[in-house]
Amino acid sequence: MEPCDAARPGFDRVAGAPPRRLLLPPLLLSLLLGRGLRVAAAASASSGAAAEDSSAMEELATEKEAEESHRQDSVSLLTFILLLTLTILTIWLFKHRRVRFLHETGLAMIYGLIVGVILRYGTPATSGRDKSLSCTQEDRAFSTLLVNVSGKFFEYTLKGEISPGKINSVEQNDMLRKVTFDPEVFFNILLPPIIFHAGYSLKKRHFFRNLGSILAYAFLGTAVSCFIIGNLMYGVVKLMKIMGQLSDKFYYTDCLFFGAIISATDPVTVLAIFNELHADVDLYALLFGESVLNDAVAIVLSSSIVAYQPAGLNTHAFDAAAFFKSVGIFLGIFSGSFTMGAVTGVVTALVTKFTKLHCFPLLETALFFLMSWSTFLLAEACGFTGVVAVLFCGITQAHYTYNNLSVESRSRTKQLFEVLHFLAENFIFSYMGLALFTFQKHVFSPVFIIGAFVAIFLGRAAHIYPLSFFLNLGRRHKIGWNFQHMMMFSGLRGAMAFALAIRDTASYARQMMFTTTLLIVFFTVWIIGGGTTPMLSWLNIRVGVDPDQDPPPNNDSFQVLQGDGPDSARGNRTKQESAWIFRLWYSFDHNYLKPILTHSGPPLTTTLPAWCGLLARCLTSPQVYDNQEPLREEDSDFILTEGDLTLTYGDSTVTANGSSGSHTGSTSLEGSRRTKSSSEEVLERDLGMGDQKVSSRGTRLVFPLEDNA
Amino acid sequence: MEPCDAARPGFDRVAGAPPRRLLLPPLLLSLLLGRGLRVAAAASASSGAAAEDSSAMEELATEKEAEESHRQDSVSLLTFILLLTLTILTIWLFKHRRVRFLHETGLAMIYGLIVGVILRYGTPATSGRDKSLSCTQEDRAFSTLLVNVSGKFFEYTLKGEISPGKINSVEQNDMLRKVTFDPEVFFNILLPPIIFHAGYSLKKRHFFRNLGSILAYAFLGTAVSCFIIGNLMYGVVKLMKIMGQLSDKFYYTDCLFFGAIISATDPVTVLAIFNELHADVDLYALLFGESVLNDAVAIVLSSSIVAYQPAGLNTHAFDAAAFFKSVGIFLGIFSGSFTMGAVTGVVTALVTKFTKLHCFPLLETALFFLMSWSTFLLAEACGFTGVVAVLFCGITQAHYTYNNLSVESRSRTKQLFEVLHFLAENFIFSYMGLALFTFQKHVFSPVFIIGAFVAIFLGRAAHIYPLSFFLNLGRRHKIGWNFQHMMMFSGLRGAMAFALAIRDTASYARQMMFTTTLLIVFFTVWIIGGGTTPMLSWLNIRVGVDPDQDPPPNNDSFQVLQGDGPDSARGNRTKQESAWIFRLWYSFDHNYLKPILTHSGPPLTTTLPAWCGLLARCLTSPQVYDNQEPLREEDSDFILTEGDLTLTYGDSTVTANGSSGSHTGSTSLEGSRRTKSSSEEVLERDLGMGDQKVSSRGTRLVFPLEDNA
Repeated sequence: MEPCDAARPGFDRVAGAPPRRLLLPPLLLSLLLGRGLRVAAAASASSGAAAEDSSAMEELATEKEAEESHRQDSVSLLTFILLLTLTILTIWLFKHRRVRFLHETGLAMIYGLIVGVILRYGTPATSGRDKSLSCTQEDRAFSTLLVNVSGKFFEYTLKGEISPGKINSVEQNDMLRKVTFDPEVFFNILLPPIIFHAGYSLKKRHFFRNLGSILAYAFLGTAVSCFIIGNLMYGVVKLMKIMGQLSDKFYYTDCLFFGAIISATDPVTVLAIFNELHADVDLYALLFGESVLNDAVAIVLSSSIVAYQPAGLNTHAFDAAAFFKSVGIFLGIFSGSFTMGAVTGVVTALVTKFTKLHCFPLLETALFFLMSWSTFLLAEACGFTGVVAVLFCGITQAHYTYNNLSVESRSRTKQLFEVLHFLAENFIFSYMGLALFTFQKHVFSPVFIIGAFVAIFLGRAAHIYPLSFFLNLGRRHKIGWNFQHMMMFSGLRGAMAFALAIRDTASYARQMMFTTTLLIVFFTVWIIGGGTTPMLSWLNIRVGVDPDQDPPPNNDSFQVLQGDGPDSARGNRTKQESAWIFRLWYSFDHNYLKPILTHSGPPLTTTLPAWCGLLARCLTSPQVYDNQEPLREEDSDFILTEGDLTLTYGDSTVTANGSSGSHTGSTSLEGSRRTKSSSEEVLERDLGMGDQKVSSRGTRLVFPLEDNA
Repeated sequence: MEPCDAARPGFDRVAGAPPRRLLLPPLLLSLLLGRGLRVAAAASASSGAAAEDSSAMEELATEKEAEESHRQDSVSLLTFILLLTLTILTIWLFKHRRVRFLHETGLAMIYGLIVGVILRYGTPATSGRDKSLSCTQEDRAFSTLLVNVSGKFFEYTLKGEISPGKINSVEQNDMLRKVTFDPEVFFNILLPPIIFHAGYSLKKRHFFRNLGSILAYAFLGTAVSCFIIGNLMYGVVKLMKIMGQLSDKFYYTDCLFFGAIISATDPVTVLAIFNELHADVDLYALLFGESVLNDAVAIVLSSSIVAYQPAGLNTHAFDAAAFFKSVGIFLGIFSGSFTMGAVTGVVTALVTKFTKLHCFPLLETALFFLMSWSTFLLAEACGFTGVVAVLFCGITQAHYTYNNLSVESRSRTKQLFEVLHFLAENFIFSYMGLALFTFQKHVFSPVFIIGAFVAIFLGRAAHIYPLSFFLNLGRRHKIGWNFQHMMMFSGLRGAMAFALAIRDTASYARQMMFTTTLLIVFFTVWIIGGGTTPMLSWLNIRVGVDPDQDPPPNNDSFQVLQGDGPDSARGNRTKQESAWIFRLWYSFDHNYLKPILTHSGPPLTTTLPAWCGLLARCLTSPQVYDNQEPLREEDSDFILTEGDLTLTYGDSTVTANGSSGSHTGSTSLEGSRRTKSSSEEVLERDLGMGDQKVSSRGTRLVFPLEDNA
């Protein structure tokens, strides 16, 4: 501990002006702190001796101030809630009237913009009310500061650094500061439910059918896009330097960082319209899968670029060692986060399989929620990326745990995360609208902005068309030109790009990037989102498709213009479509993972070698043996039209009917009621989700791979 | 802004020892801040000039530190999540085996205790790692501090005061500090969903039938209990002073404050068993209603007592002006919070009535959630009590809005708040277990603790028995002796008493109260909770009752020992049971409020005077006219057994069947699927909730009141 040095020259620079905050007060948090403070003040007031009159008055003043701050926080949060309420009501009106050119997220941004303008120009600047004090210390910033005020000790915690050049430049406005969140709120509170929901609601069948292409677009595509945008932007920056429009440093790594954050696509608007119009399911799977995975890639890529720090003095030149370290970091963080997510998903699957928790949907739902949240914390605690882990946890939960849940829990978990996702997403978008006017460090640079628009266009073109060409060499279901154009067109930017950009707005370069990202999001969501429906019809993309049906030749008003038609023989579709590596994984998943983690699949006693007999018997669910009936004709039809890809091979799932028979009936009345209508619910929900189905067989998989080999 | 004075005598007192935190770091919040810090440091590292090598190293150190802190936060939160997961799994085992002596909350406390012991005695004290610095200033504590570290500015925010006596006394332990939450987390995040759920799940029929008694117990009872406990404890404190066991001040107002916080009963354990065994519904309504409302009373009462500050020097003597001011504050805050809650509830009801939002359950649920949350913020922004407002909002939502929601939204909202309530409640109880060992300022005073146990026993006896006597004078359904004993026995303390006690632990008196409250909660939850089943059978209280059925004379193994039997004539039950003021309100509610706020009740055109014709036509829902069919025989039976009290008079609700007919079908496939099974769902859900029913009539209410008058 060290004393403060009051006589530092640095201090005089700030003395006259109110300080600027770099990481602005986290609203939710000060909501808590403000109150805590008030009570503390009240407590010390009541415990103080009667004689200390002046100190009591002082404490009352502090209390009043804290109370006032708490009120302001409540008002600010209320502003956002009213914004969301307004958005919900308006979007209802739009849906009601079938207006499709404006998505709810676009609307949330518009309302945010309006409120931002009001806050910016309608509220008075209250610079006089700032309660700050400056204090100088020698060495470095400590995380905790203890201040002695007339014999009483107050504790302060570090908020963050304030760039000295900015301290005097912008006027103070309490309201503007109040509606500005700590950027980490987005990463730690708002993004996880959005990303988890994306993983949990992946339409598995079409996702896995296009897995290879999706992985190619997400990994190769994002990397290509990142480097192309980064290099183009470096050119733009050079140009700006020549034109004298650049007032501060802007390194090559900054350009690459911009390339990484802006490569995270988020076609939420397009996908909503696809969903509503029931557009082609393969295109949907390609777009959705790519956008979900490239979010993960973009996060890890951007933090790898930040971690790129060459040794020696010349910190912004190329350094092979630092480069490979960054690549290593990328691979490490990505695989670590993936493992974390998969492991918690597998643990949840095991727990829900081997307990009879499904008799108590409330407990089951709570457990599901807690386990999914713990993925995030586990990954963060281990130094990986929580958001990425949450994504893979969601996919694992959907693939295994979902099958073990009771019917009620299935709908409960889906609905819970759906609501959380909806609220978080619209919150972020309305915050974006607000930020355009209330964020106080915008750097508008027309050259950079125009350059960025051109760069993202070229960057997307440079990965969609060449990649599609190479993919089409291996694909039987070619990705047609109209699909490629649509994918090119759907390169919207959204919540993830924004969250990555706002995370760090300390330097001039980052502020310029943030402003540009915000404008790109606005433009793409409004213009591209609005143009989706015309584009779909212009590109002749099929709409009105049953998402669980295979494409029939010509069942709607649009003409199918795909490179080749649907397969004639359904039976060997998977063989033809999938790469051998996927088929290997699929066989492993079907023969071992599914039987271990769920109540479905063939008994392990038949798939594992004989010497694992005891283990196999322990791990195999008793339901699997019950389900060993011969395949009926209507089942096979059902599976092919409704079921998961896996069902083509006679996969089986224990249905809720089977499990509800084992209800212990301890909450007797409600239990029996639940059972009554469960069959209807099964039907309804499973139809709604296009998920694994009521079939019940369990045969050793004789895999087409072997015919090939 | 003022410079820091390094040469103050106060500073030397702390210089040698690491500081103690008064308001401990809010875990969730520093989770955010920690990350923010890290990124800020990383940013400044990347934007800094290449030459500043030493400063870059320094920033890297800060970054590492922030990252470490973020990791520790994640680990701490993970601890709680694992605790909850363990609780869920164990409680499943208990429910599975029908073990009833230990409730999930009791179990959560036990696990919390175990982890608390491990953290306390199993982790090393890491006092050497504390990063603090002391700094002295003249006048008063500012809310923001700006620190100049070698030319860079860092912002600090005020955490709270640290009592100087405590600075050197307790060793530092990072882990213990990390698992300690800001007390305001309970009030602003965990309690609201619990309280809202309580209001939203009030069994309306039995609640309203016993409204008078419930209000009497909640208001008079809590006040009586508060003053009796306060006075008894003042005696105990005097005794302790004589015995020399009191080392610091303990005023009369402190005793009253203790009386207020400990008067908040929370018989969650008892009610869970009642629910499971289907114990007598009237007793359930009395206990549940009392506990829900007395939470609200206790909060407002305790803040009124804190606000009691007589003018002049003698701040702890009686002062009539200050007393009446406190009474005024009580009435003001209570009625203000009540109004806030009711108003947002009414607004939500109007919005859901006059829009067709029920076609989009997701939007509807999101709106419902946002409006309910806004109640809390609105009340806090206006200086009222958010938790109290949320309670009344919940009741209003259940009474009006619930009827306007779509079937899916009804179950969604119920399930959403059920999960939130479950998680929050078990979180609080496991935190309580943890706090017994990790809280670092316990004051164990055996005399005070024994005195408190005696006082709460006497305090409860002194309000249950006399009040029941007076209530029985006016009640037709007398509250029997066995009911009175059961109510006396069910005086458990829980989450609310804990949250009120932990809110302020600054002074010696408050610390002693906190420790005592914690022990009272432990004792009552474990011992009384465990003794509920034996007590029920010992007191001959009926179990196995259909909650929606009226008490039949002898339908189970227990003998009915109530003062008088069930009414012979069902028709005039309400007349006999309810006081005239309730009947007046009921008539107003039925004739005007229900028709305005919901799709049910008689058309306003028949109940409002003729000159309001236009207004009445605008406000009356078209469904009301459609519903004007004659009352069928099976309906009336149905109503009497299943419906709300109001249905006795031919009230009507628009059912989901009616409303699902008006689905616009824009999400065509899912929409039609939903409609398919909606009738089953209606049945199932309505049976489960004992709520308003499928009957449809709307007649002008000819009220029995008029026969009486």
